[in-house]
Amino acid sequence: MVSTEIEALVQQLARLPGLGPRSARRAVLHLMKKRESAFAPLLAALQTVSERLVTCTTCGNIDTHDPCAICADPRRDARSLCVVEEVSDLWALDKSRLFPGKYHVLGGRLSALEGVRPQDLSIDALVTRVAAGGIDEVVLAMNATLEGQTTAHYLAERLEGYPVRLTQLAHGLPVGGELDYLDEGTLAQALRARRPVG
Amino acid sequence: MVSTEIEALVQQLARLPGLGPRSARRAVLHLMKKRESAFAPLLAALQTVSERLVTCTTCGNIDTHDPCAICADPRRDARSLCVVEEVSDLWALDKSRLFPGKYHVLGGRLSALEGVRPQDLSIDALVTRVAAGGIDEVVLAMNATLEGQTTAHYLAERLEGYPVRLTQLAHGLPVGGELDYLDEGTLAQALRARRPVG
Repeated sequence: MVSTEIEALVQQLARLPGLGPRSARRAVLHLMKKRESAFAPLLAALQTVSERLVTCTTCGNIDTHDPCAICADPRRDARSLCVVEEVSDLWALDKSRLFPGKYHVLGGRLSALEGVRPQDLSIDALVTRVAAGGIDEVVLAMNATLEGQTTAHYLAERLEGYPVRLTQLAHGLPVGGELDYLDEGTLAQALRARRPVG
Repeated sequence: MVSTEIEALVQQLARLPGLGPRSARRAVLHLMKKRESAFAPLLAALQTVSERLVTCTTCGNIDTHDPCAICADPRRDARSLCVVEEVSDLWALDKSRLFPGKYHVLGGRLSALEGVRPQDLSIDALVTRVAAGGIDEVVLAMNATLEGQTTAHYLAERLEGYPVRLTQLAHGLPVGGELDYLDEGTLAQALRARRPVG
């Protein structure tokens, strides 16, 4: 029998992705045992982020500043713009530090099933950014799903006529992928996009 | 590139047991996307617990009240006392609701290797509780480790002479245990403690 306050904390933690009731309980015990070295710093970090969290009005990233750290970074190449569906996609791409340019977060993907229309996404803002000039290349980094690719096609149409190079992520075998285990769709994409050797 | 405040939060979360850098990042993204439904309640729950966290002066449990919810519960049988090493052991036992009595948390186990001596644990307080009377049975629920059992032996000596029944958890096959896969120590314990059938 644990007090209701602690039980409430366990339940809140258990709702985080990757944690369940059992691991949340373990996490709370860990926090309670290390009040100074774990509980206090975590609480302080959460409070700081909670107070400062804003959506970047330029790109749609979530950060503690507006414009966000990426938009404000002068070392980043403003001529390359990478369009992603969600903030999590931006983080995943940016963690690898492979893309030196800036980003634009749509906030979702077009979906007839879920009733997501172009005006529900940050597409007008993207067109405005491109129309303002100074951008050479727009990378459409949508997920390789039906809806992601539909969104990419729609964006390509909307951005037609602007003097930018439109590109999209390559589709094909993932690193370590074995033909034997890959789905037909991936194999078809890889075959269709085959390149000359050397 | 994420702002330093968010990175600090990811690092704090990643130190929780069961979470790593990757899942902590996912958890932070989840919190940032659901500010009202996830971030705010989690922060509030942490704050409440942080403000009220106390160690129960009676049993050593960590709770938001002193005496803790277990010690204060009149439906619990005060004549049975279950002695455990850590608060996590208390939670593990109590979650199952198998033990209807009260608890005493030692705060560790005797260990020559780690230099933990009797006076480092809450043993005098335990003897005082037992000496005060009103307790019929003391269950020594130490871990089935060398140090846990050493601690149990020491406690048995210290509590000798008091009019209480001293018991300890049974050792033997765990539920679902197959002889083929169990270690010799467990098999030896199970054989030594064998019971008449029926």
